[in-house]
Amino acid sequence: MDKPVTVVWQITKYIGGELQQQDDEVVTEFPLTIKLDREEFATIVCTPTDLEDLVIGFLASEGIIRSASELRSLNIDDSRGIAEVELAIKQNTAKDWVNKRFIGSCCGKSRQFYFHNDARTAKTIPLGNTIITALQCLELMRQLQHASLEFQSTGGVHNAALCDMEGVLITRTDIGRHNALDKIYGYCIRNHIPLKGKIIAFSGRISSEVLLKTAKIGAGIILSKSAPTQLALQLAEELGITVIGFIRGQTFNVYTHPERIK
Amino acid sequence: MDKPVTVVWQITKYIGGELQQQDDEVVTEFPLTIKLDREEFATIVCTPTDLEDLVIGFLASEGIIRSASELRSLNIDDSRGIAEVELAIKQNTAKDWVNKRFIGSCCGKSRQFYFHNDARTAKTIPLGNTIITALQCLELMRQLQHASLEFQSTGGVHNAALCDMEGVLITRTDIGRHNALDKIYGYCIRNHIPLKGKIIAFSGRISSEVLLKTAKIGAGIILSKSAPTQLALQLAEELGITVIGFIRGQTFNVYTHPERIK
Repeated sequence: MDKPVTVVWQITKYIGGELQQQDDEVVTEFPLTIKLDREEFATIVCTPTDLEDLVIGFLASEGIIRSASELRSLNIDDSRGIAEVELAIKQNTAKDWVNKRFIGSCCGKSRQFYFHNDARTAKTIPLGNTIITALQCLELMRQLQHASLEFQSTGGVHNAALCDMEGVLITRTDIGRHNALDKIYGYCIRNHIPLKGKIIAFSGRISSEVLLKTAKIGAGIILSKSAPTQLALQLAEELGITVIGFIRGQTFNVYTHPERIK
Repeated sequence: MDKPVTVVWQITKYIGGELQQQDDEVVTEFPLTIKLDREEFATIVCTPTDLEDLVIGFLASEGIIRSASELRSLNIDDSRGIAEVELAIKQNTAKDWVNKRFIGSCCGKSRQFYFHNDARTAKTIPLGNTIITALQCLELMRQLQHASLEFQSTGGVHNAALCDMEGVLITRTDIGRHNALDKIYGYCIRNHIPLKGKIIAFSGRISSEVLLKTAKIGAGIILSKSAPTQLALQLAEELGITVIGFIRGQTFNVYTHPERIK
């Protein structure tokens, strides 16, 4: 059962030089602690929707599981904000690497990764896997924005869509930039949706973390109306991902691997 | 020595139905790993400016230190992205609580905290500490936006200012929402700037983490042009902080403790 995405809050509004009481809508923020085999693993602050997908996508993204069958059970206690996860096969080594800094050797490869788990789980996407036209880029971003309309009243949540060349397949929303992508990843894992040839459309900035999530999902193209960071672009170069940003009106910028644009 | 905030990146621009080569400016993103007494403590992804302030502010915010004198040494290795911190007095207990979930007891107090360290370090701000007029709110936000002009070309970085009733004292920028606040906190600690009666002006959404950083700094008022979250507002209610959002043109919303507005 999803909790509400927004709630009513009584505010004092300053307008026309005066203060007046008014009702306003504010977005919720929900801390969810994931326990792995009864041990605290991570706390995610999120929009409280699609929590099972979020947990599964997060664990896959961190390299703890690869498929839903690697979970023995997943129970979410909404009231306490706890997700109890039991793994089918106990593991200790993977947990030890989470958020541990990865310092590349001097041989020059993969120096951009900063966490060990990312170096383990981010996939390099073969070129030629996905080719799109400029008009498809514009159209997919338009579809993402259209699908996100319901959340625009409170502003500021991030929207992500999983697309193929034909259009948007699913969209997910979260107050946390990466959570929207983990919700998509978890949904795909739970429903055995093949991830080959997919495209991610994203409402916000393409940070290194967003780029790494895209690589973990296995999408060859990421589209955004915002800008990428330099670190995201260095990772995209290495991982073979086409980054397209600043999609606004009839223009956009291709930052990496333009060979995927027809 | 600060690293650059933006770099030039060659892009392929789609404009007027054609693809053309062009130079563009992208924002940098720098992973900095903090080691406490040689042990890995946390990795912060940040804009590579004011790194000493960032480390000190972050450690104070996590409850590891209370003043600069609690540091024996701080050495930042820019090329490897490592900050080596030696504490004046070795401690083990504080580190154990970082990012550990705080589940409040049933007695009803402070149920909003989700990390133990926050419950330990967030200060309750006495009412009457700071009173401002509506026009001062508008003016401080105008000053923050003016001071942030230099970063607007690349878009999307967060700006924070420490203010008093007279105006903006310092502004800091970062790609990470909370880093801008940690940079301010660290600067104040290093320079023994008293934090009583201060106001924070912030460019982005007031999330629970931003609200908690404000409480740790000890400011009684936070101003933003964006919206707060419900969890931030619940924390603000408890901690006695006045949250003013959606400062746009000549209007704004007071979400909590309006008694500080004259």
